[in-house]
Amino acid sequence: MTTPSNGTRPALGVAMIGYAFMGAAHSQAWRNAHRFFDLPARPELRVVCGRSESATREAGERMGWADWTTDWRTVLQRDDVQVVDICTPGDTHAEIALAALAAGKHVLCEKPLANTVAEAEAMTAAAQTAQARGVLSSVGFNYRRTPALAHARRLVEEGALGTVRHIRAHYLQDWIVDPEFPLVWRLQKDKAGSGALGDIGAHIVDLAQFLTGQRLTDVAGHLTRFVERRPLAEATSGLQASGGAETGEVTVDDAAVFLGRTDGGALATFEATRFATGRKNAMRIELNGSAGSIAFDFEAMNELHVHDATVPDRDAGFRRILVTEPDHPYAAAWWPPGHGLGYEHTFVHEIADFVRDVVSGTPPTPSFADGLQVQRVLDAVERSSAAGAAWTPVGADQPGRRPQHTDHPPPPAASADVASSTTH
Amino acid sequence: MTTPSNGTRPALGVAMIGYAFMGAAHSQAWRNAHRFFDLPARPELRVVCGRSESATREAGERMGWADWTTDWRTVLQRDDVQVVDICTPGDTHAEIALAALAAGKHVLCEKPLANTVAEAEAMTAAAQTAQARGVLSSVGFNYRRTPALAHARRLVEEGALGTVRHIRAHYLQDWIVDPEFPLVWRLQKDKAGSGALGDIGAHIVDLAQFLTGQRLTDVAGHLTRFVERRPLAEATSGLQASGGAETGEVTVDDAAVFLGRTDGGALATFEATRFATGRKNAMRIELNGSAGSIAFDFEAMNELHVHDATVPDRDAGFRRILVTEPDHPYAAAWWPPGHGLGYEHTFVHEIADFVRDVVSGTPPTPSFADGLQVQRVLDAVERSSAAGAAWTPVGADQPGRRPQHTDHPPPPAASADVASSTTH
Amino acid sequence: MTTPSNGTRPALGVAMIGYAFMGAAHSQAWRNAHRFFDLPARPELRVVCGRSESATREAGERMGWADWTTDWRTVLQRDDVQVVDICTPGDTHAEIALAALAAGKHVLCEKPLANTVAEAEAMTAAAQTAQARGVLSSVGFNYRRTPALAHARRLVEEGALGTVRHIRAHYLQDWIVDPEFPLVWRLQKDKAGSGALGDIGAHIVDLAQFLTGQRLTDVAGHLTRFVERRPLAEATSGLQASGGAETGEVTVDDAAVFLGRTDGGALATFEATRFATGRKNAMRIELNGSAGSIAFDFEAMNELHVHDATVPDRDAGFRRILVTEPDHPYAAAWWPPGHGLGYEHTFVHEIADFVRDVVSGTPPTPSFADGLQVQRVLDAVERSSAAGAAWTPVGADQPGRRPQHTDHPPPPAASADVASSTTH
Amino acid sequence: MTTPSNGTRPALGVAMIGYAFMGAAHSQAWRNAHRFFDLPARPELRVVCGRSESATREAGERMGWADWTTDWRTVLQRDDVQVVDICTPGDTHAEIALAALAAGKHVLCEKPLANTVAEAEAMTAAAQTAQARGVLSSVGFNYRRTPALAHARRLVEEGALGTVRHIRAHYLQDWIVDPEFPLVWRLQKDKAGSGALGDIGAHIVDLAQFLTGQRLTDVAGHLTRFVERRPLAEATSGLQASGGAETGEVTVDDAAVFLGRTDGGALATFEATRFATGRKNAMRIELNGSAGSIAFDFEAMNELHVHDATVPDRDAGFRRILVTEPDHPYAAAWWPPGHGLGYEHTFVHEIADFVRDVVSGTPPTPSFADGLQVQRVLDAVERSSAAGAAWTPVGADQPGRRPQHTDHPPPPAASADVASSTTH
Repeated sequence: MTTPSNGTRPALGVAMIGYAFMGAAHSQAWRNAHRFFDLPARPELRVVCGRSESATREAGERMGWADWTTDWRTVLQRDDVQVVDICTPGDTHAEIALAALAAGKHVLCEKPLANTVAEAEAMTAAAQTAQARGVLSSVGFNYRRTPALAHARRLVEEGALGTVRHIRAHYLQDWIVDPEFPLVWRLQKDKAGSGALGDIGAHIVDLAQFLTGQRLTDVAGHLTRFVERRPLAEATSGLQASGGAETGEVTVDDAAVFLGRTDGGALATFEATRFATGRKNAMRIELNGSAGSIAFDFEAMNELHVHDATVPDRDAGFRRILVTEPDHPYAAAWWPPGHGLGYEHTFVHEIADFVRDVVSGTPPTPSFADGLQVQRVLDAVERSSAAGAAWTPVGADQPGRRPQHTDHPPPPAASADVASSTTH
Repeated sequence: MTTPSNGTRPALGVAMIGYAFMGAAHSQAWRNAHRFFDLPARPELRVVCGRSESATREAGERMGWADWTTDWRTVLQRDDVQVVDICTPGDTHAEIALAALAAGKHVLCEKPLANTVAEAEAMTAAAQTAQARGVLSSVGFNYRRTPALAHARRLVEEGALGTVRHIRAHYLQDWIVDPEFPLVWRLQKDKAGSGALGDIGAHIVDLAQFLTGQRLTDVAGHLTRFVERRPLAEATSGLQASGGAETGEVTVDDAAVFLGRTDGGALATFEATRFATGRKNAMRIELNGSAGSIAFDFEAMNELHVHDATVPDRDAGFRRILVTEPDHPYAAAWWPPGHGLGYEHTFVHEIADFVRDVVSGTPPTPSFADGLQVQRVLDAVERSSAAGAAWTPVGADQPGRRPQHTDHPPPPAASADVASSTTH
Repeated sequence: MTTPSNGTRPALGVAMIGYAFMGAAHSQAWRNAHRFFDLPARPELRVVCGRSESATREAGERMGWADWTTDWRTVLQRDDVQVVDICTPGDTHAEIALAALAAGKHVLCEKPLANTVAEAEAMTAAAQTAQARGVLSSVGFNYRRTPALAHARRLVEEGALGTVRHIRAHYLQDWIVDPEFPLVWRLQKDKAGSGALGDIGAHIVDLAQFLTGQRLTDVAGHLTRFVERRPLAEATSGLQASGGAETGEVTVDDAAVFLGRTDGGALATFEATRFATGRKNAMRIELNGSAGSIAFDFEAMNELHVHDATVPDRDAGFRRILVTEPDHPYAAAWWPPGHGLGYEHTFVHEIADFVRDVVSGTPPTPSFADGLQVQRVLDAVERSSAAGAAWTPVGADQPGRRPQHTDHPPPPAASADVASSTTH
Repeated sequence: MTTPSNGTRPALGVAMIGYAFMGAAHSQAWRNAHRFFDLPARPELRVVCGRSESATREAGERMGWADWTTDWRTVLQRDDVQVVDICTPGDTHAEIALAALAAGKHVLCEKPLANTVAEAEAMTAAAQTAQARGVLSSVGFNYRRTPALAHARRLVEEGALGTVRHIRAHYLQDWIVDPEFPLVWRLQKDKAGSGALGDIGAHIVDLAQFLTGQRLTDVAGHLTRFVERRPLAEATSGLQASGGAETGEVTVDDAAVFLGRTDGGALATFEATRFATGRKNAMRIELNGSAGSIAFDFEAMNELHVHDATVPDRDAGFRRILVTEPDHPYAAAWWPPGHGLGYEHTFVHEIADFVRDVVSGTPPTPSFADGLQVQRVLDAVERSSAAGAAWTPVGADQPGRRPQHTDHPPPPAASADVASSTTH
């Protein structure tokens, strides 16, 4: 275990906008990251912001925030806030992020970066401008911080897979298989932007690019909807007379399947669905390269399966590595080998890396530009689907030029528990 | 175990054309099927046919064939041959099958049925004509006879999955990852028709349709080639001077990825590749339905994973069923529960079913029409790939009409070891 | 997720003695339990105690303790401390626990309860006396709070397994396979009491009894040591000249294997070892009963495999249940289904249950009596080993009478997120 | 695939005594071994022997035997029989084997070698005498010929595991969990010798010794019976009046658990049971050594899991090897990589090795002496159980001397498909 001594470290004031599922996960990370990682600053949970007074106050108390508000603009004026953490639905990301960056606050924004490419472009432009002033930003693709996947990235970078030929990425859930499941906001296009595509497809698109270090250049895909109408959320509250259950239209995709090609010559297949009955959070990625392969399933998140094709056939096979050794990414900060981590630790790692970066003035990853690139892929999938699944190029800032790739490898394992003396 | 007593059963004379990989598997099945299944006739391995005299004779002796020849036409004239089993490369299927049917021989033809849709159509037409005369035929999609998959088909038919929404089918191999692997006939379009698509993609297309009882109506896909030239097979024999290794052009696909839609409203993804490093024969199929799911991987062929969504969440999960119980398809004929079967048993089951059908005059499945349907899907994938991955309809005999679906369910488990007194 | 609102809850002052591996895990739990569970009191981390001034202060700051001391007796005099959490090596448990109970502090004591049966008996007697005064205590067999195992206990209690016949329990680690691994305190009998037996064997003994609700009555076993001498810990610090590496004698077992019989007629096998190369924290338990079975491996701690023998053979198999559903024990407090938990959550659950119990005046489980029972089993294993593996009865307070069994089932899942209005 | 050409090979006449489960498996092997392996002789299935005329004749026809008889002594007089294959229950092994060896017939005897040590000793003595005359013998521990286990043996021999410390061997079945399962002969001591111990425990004792190349020197164990009386087999036939179901006493063990120590310093645990609900044929072996580990489960018989502790922790893990590569034992004779084998292939390999050995005059393994050693272990387990689980030495011919160890490694993979010119 690490031995960070945070007592003398400067505080880093944090404001969080939104307090639901992501808010709970982020709060846990903000509270605990410096207990396990030797960070150059000590996060202070200064203020949480939500729409409902009572709910926000209650959530703030429960999650450990010192203050609360229902007006997110006020937090931008607080001198004791250096970081704004955006955990709201996607339709509000752009407005909040732009204002926060303009106010000189570092921004951590949940994924997807925005609901449209245009918003994401504006955010990326603002992030680049802000960065010149030392104001930093990142988009919350937390799964990159799964130790097994950070280790996988390192293996690819070291060349353990050779030339990557196949990317096989699935994100399978099943929470809306029941047609009586209500029409929550995640099933409404105006709030969520898209359905399975943007919610979970975004993760596997980001991971495919992160793990390979390559960009998707073209996609061909199809979106579908299996259940067209669902009970209104209110209609399920039991408050109304029987027989009168009102329904509303589902306006997002239930599932998205698409093919992809990368600038490195790999062929990819993606599937994101909320109708994979029995699969709860099966985010699965397999890469096959000329020299080896890796395979991962988030339902067994502490394992990475690695095949090394350079050993004799007699000895070859997928090796089940428990990614809990001290020299695995992030693992040295935690428990002994074999004592696994859970979902929430991906956020603790994300926050630890983010704090280090903003204190040291290093642009964090994934950047808004990375988030924009994912958004462009999702947009191209939607366009392809509308165009009969035809190959559709992924947009870029300057046609003919490859988008700047800010992706960088995970921190070396050793750095997980090595003190940095940087402060700000 | 069954107790067939075959001593008094009539003989069924078999001729086999081709004696390589498939020939060895078929021979093993012809020799042994009646030892475990109570068949209405006893297969007799009358004659094997190949191109090389010495090799054919040698193979015949080794595999237990009473006679051999290098002229396949002569076997059609033999009165002691009732069945012609075609195990040659796809470019010769049509000619042999048409002649055999015309000669009144029952035909079992290896998959893919043919290298082109036109050939497959001619074969299907001939099969239908022959059937009217009591001459029967079948195409060798042996994987349907894997007990786990035959059981899966039964579960789908019983409604255990409800409405099938997702089909996820992969066939992953890695035998040509090495660019120095030579240019064997399976990599040449004139002989093999196509590469991964027709060789292994054909199996998962057939299984997707077999398991769901649905037809693919549209596909959108992409074929790719990772290695363009390879050493000529001769050039690898070590007989020539160093530095002078000749190469030839690979003319088939190395990998095929495609999406599909079925007439039952399911969305399918397919991947067939010979570049999935570390995957040896990973034929994987998962179906997700409104009421449950099934998952299968041929690398663990005795297991079927079944999820029942109608049980409470608390108790739900994928059940690993060892498909070796007496009431599983084909299993009663073999060993006690938990004592698994292997690859070759799929052929033994195929032959057992075929013998029963031809003796009783029942049209066997999969029919040539089923093989044609698969061929049309493969053809549509190739056309889609050429057209930029756009959705492409799967052709049909008569536009506007659904192709006749000859698919029928696997035999009930009980029939595996129940004596039939039928003779012919 | 739960919505505890802890702001108005009374504080519960905690002192922790020891701050190493277990101290870090407990601190994390004390800091976070009330963030996820609706507890009737809010734990306050008042003071941590250790031997070294600088290390204790540093650990206290890092782990979030308000104060620190090197004299554990002083904490017993503090009015702001209601709970003493003992995380020191086993040789100090008895002295601290007896004094804490005498001082009217609730006690949570790490396992094993003590290094000897005599100490454990004294502690249990003191705990029973204290309980009469409302002063409560528990021993930290945290693995009982793994959701999968708490669910398994409920299944057994509901009769899902029928009569349990077999218990198969292994705890496999490999951290001292290397003979150059130094002679740390866990390898010294005077400090650790025993080796693999008491450290990890204790857990599987407790779980075997907890899961089945039965007591071990007899054991027959063998302790062994594979490496007799190891480098002194100091000798490995690199401070001394080469060639002069001093070694010391390993005085505990490297591995323990034993058979057991329970008062419910089950036959058990146990293996605890630190020499299972490649197994990092493979705590595996399988129970086979007349009506079903369960199987578990901590290396995949979010899964429970359950076999129901009452379904037809055709459909039977081990079901892989992801124990992350809202109606699974503890799971409702955390993340959506399929988003797994890690090792540390077993402690958060332990603390949550403990806080609820001490506030409501309910004797927590496992009790010191349960810890004593485990100690008696370990003692009987040592005596059996010394007696040539002969069956050896597990001691009891009053021969002929079954020890009081304080074991009770885990809280119902619902209670995980239901507010209790109890305060103290 | 191999290309044996058997046409010109001499015949090897075989007689089989017994035709039930083992008889069916052996017949399949005798019929097919020379089709896949290039054997120096072609087995001819000359005569099968059983007690019932009609059943023997019927089985003979079905399984491919040219002749049948109900008097096993007559087959010893036939000149066209060179091999006697004994597939009867254990109580008849000694008499038949002794007579066959005396008659100059090579003998393959099913395991366990005999029902008592005395019988096994007599058989071993006779085998040694016969061997001097060129008459050979072997006991049928077929699982040694599972490719994964033959490969495991080779790895151990090559030193891949270093010094073996732990042997963990389970054989779990569940076919008599139901108390209404009838009192078949395998549950009667006079016919079967013992229950789970001799039937399945014998296999894991043999494998533990085979894989490690070590001998068990002491055991400490316990036999148990969960169901004391069962319906008589006749009583279950439905022929008698309701209410009058007669029961009989079960006279063998239902389960056996035991510890063991080897002459190489390893510590072993064994469990053989027919009450492991849900486990069908889970023969599991794990070895942990100073340099690595191997793990195997027959329910996934084509896989071997191998851990190499000499690689850095970062990369270490159990590798799942599909033991289907051309350079794996026996695999070259069969199908391409990933196309698995089944239970029956263990017998085909056993027969292939046996034919090669008897033709070339090489004493086959496992020898009768190996079978005797297993019998002595089983006997020691029974004595230990009767003596309260105390350590009990495994008997030996000459006290103080280690029994001669005839164990030898599996044939090199290459030999599986390399022609031998040996004839006789």
